[in-house]
Amino acid sequence: SRELFVLTYGALVAQLCKDYEKDEDVNTCLDRMGYGIGIRLIEDFLARSAVKKCRSYSETADMIAQVAFKMYLGVTPSVSCSSAAGNEFSLILDKNPLVDFVEELPAERASLCYCNLLCGVIRGALEMVHLSAEVTFLQDKLKGDAVTEIGIVFLKNIEDKKHKRN
Amino acid sequence: SRELFVLTYGALVAQLCKDYEKDEDVNTCLDRMGYGIGIRLIEDFLARSAVKKCRSYSETADMIAQVAFKMYLGVTPSVSCSSAAGNEFSLILDKNPLVDFVEELPAERASLCYCNLLCGVIRGALEMVHLSAEVTFLQDKLKGDAVTEIGIVFLKNIEDKKHKRN
Repeated sequence: SRELFVLTYGALVAQLCKDYEKDEDVNTCLDRMGYGIGIRLIEDFLARSAVKKCRSYSETADMIAQVAFKMYLGVTPSVSCSSAAGNEFSLILDKNPLVDFVEELPAERASLCYCNLLCGVIRGALEMVHLSAEVTFLQDKLKGDAVTEIGIVFLKNIEDKKHKRN
Repeated sequence: SRELFVLTYGALVAQLCKDYEKDEDVNTCLDRMGYGIGIRLIEDFLARSAVKKCRSYSETADMIAQVAFKMYLGVTPSVSCSSAAGNEFSLILDKNPLVDFVEELPAERASLCYCNLLCGVIRGALEMVHLSAEVTFLQDKLKGDAVTEIGIVFLKNIEDKKHKRN
């Protein structure tokens, strides 16, 4: 059940806010923790989803939204491609279950990316399937935006880099 | 899905181990966080489980094991009453999903109650239904015990205390 997870996540963020004065440091820490989670979670994801290898960034973005988010958070973000090059995507969440118990960010925490763990999780998981990506929050309902939007920018393929090096 | 929760919980414990040198302080902190979660989670539990009011400590212990643990952790501990007075119970877990990704405690963390958050959650939730209890780990597979055992000692009923005071 999600509620225990959501409240536990809240306790984690609260603890980091105690530990670090600067929002940026909390955000970095959440992202780093998420990365550590993502590189372990991917195995579980591949085993349980039994999905096939994605053949494009677009397929990968859809997979994250439709299979991974559904599996782990019970919601399905909509996906849009936001670059002509076809390597930038937005996951748009009308509803973000991770903030179910959060009313608003305190005034002194205006730069906090409350759900930044998710960015790290996605980044870590992608890296384990040899995809390098930058993952950041572009909009956040908690900050007054209309929706919550996670941006994924796929960088050069790690495998490609290796080939070039050899 | 539980895996994301379990890994996030691991990140929380790891952070607290960074923050506090003494295992006892980590344990206290986890218990306190759990308490804060329990007092909020009970509403969700009552709403979703639609259970009736328990008429005895024994019924309450069964409810925690069979409904709450099942709902939030996907496992059902067995329950045994461990006092003639009928106010002490053990929840015995053959399998503890919260430690799925933990191999063993590091040697320098031998006194860590890794899952102590759960004790706080139970304590907090019980308090919100006017039951005062001490909740502690009595055995822990992570520490080499054969099973994981959570002890619940129901203390004087808070309502009773109020009546007596009046």
